[in-house]
Amino acid sequence: MGKLTGSAMEAALAQALAAAKRGEVPVGAVITDASGALIAARGNEVEAKADPMAHAEILALQDASRQLTRKFLSDCTLTVTLEPCVMCAGAIAAFRVNKLVFGSYDPKSGAVEHGPRVFAQASTHHHPEVIGGVRDSECAALLRGFFERLRDA
Amino acid sequence: MGKLTGSAMEAALAQALAAAKRGEVPVGAVITDASGALIAARGNEVEAKADPMAHAEILALQDASRQLTRKFLSDCTLTVTLEPCVMCAGAIAAFRVNKLVFGSYDPKSGAVEHGPRVFAQASTHHHPEVIGGVRDSECAALLRGFFERLRDA
Repeated sequence: MGKLTGSAMEAALAQALAAAKRGEVPVGAVITDASGALIAARGNEVEAKADPMAHAEILALQDASRQLTRKFLSDCTLTVTLEPCVMCAGAIAAFRVNKLVFGSYDPKSGAVEHGPRVFAQASTHHHPEVIGGVRDSECAALLRGFFERLRDA
Repeated sequence: MGKLTGSAMEAALAQALAAAKRGEVPVGAVITDASGALIAARGNEVEAKADPMAHAEILALQDASRQLTRKFLSDCTLTVTLEPCVMCAGAIAAFRVNKLVFGSYDPKSGAVEHGPRVFAQASTHHHPEVIGGVRDSECAALLRGFFERLRDA
């Protein structure tokens, strides 16, 4: 997909915003390679696809793997606006992602710093480098705004 | 897909055996509805699809959701020959599967009775009924045989 003009988190936020405009829970994810080039960028599509697995992370991981025509993303970074859930954390390990950068912490459904803490488990056989809380307040505001509008609708 | 002739675990074992013959790690999964009718039956296709997410459970869940043209499988049972990993356990929760029946326990990568114990977490918002260890020895023998043949090859 070529060079990023801003940061990876800006690109993920743009995907989250686009998801919100489609009526999806606003989460966005991008995959970049070791050089920082953008490989995949997706937003949540659970409603559009009527598929509970169509989280931004899963769609971006599958896109990147197809794009690079290889099974593992060992030189790639996944940047996502929200702490991944248990399914997505498992997928991140399955694709052997090198580094995970996430935005807001998710005490309710997050599975990296909360709940099952997937990458702290010996039964998870791949442990990416993890950086959480990047542009936390912006990522959280996007989600909060979405749920406030839903509640007021 | 119609009526099952044997038990759901027999159908899952047949899928696992077929996967082994294709050179895949022998895991099979089937989805049945509340009446016991077979909705989906898949074996592991990680190698064939070069997709680390192509576990038998994920493929069967996606097939069943498409087949029933609905997002959630709240009246369905997933029967699988091996204790699900963390990604698959997360997907089982995401699809709101009513009941999970699994064969052999997997202390190395299992995430139901081991490691993250996904369905024991408050951050997992759906908790299926779980029955583990069904025809444990047959399911385990299939896996053991596969890895022994790999080692001896």
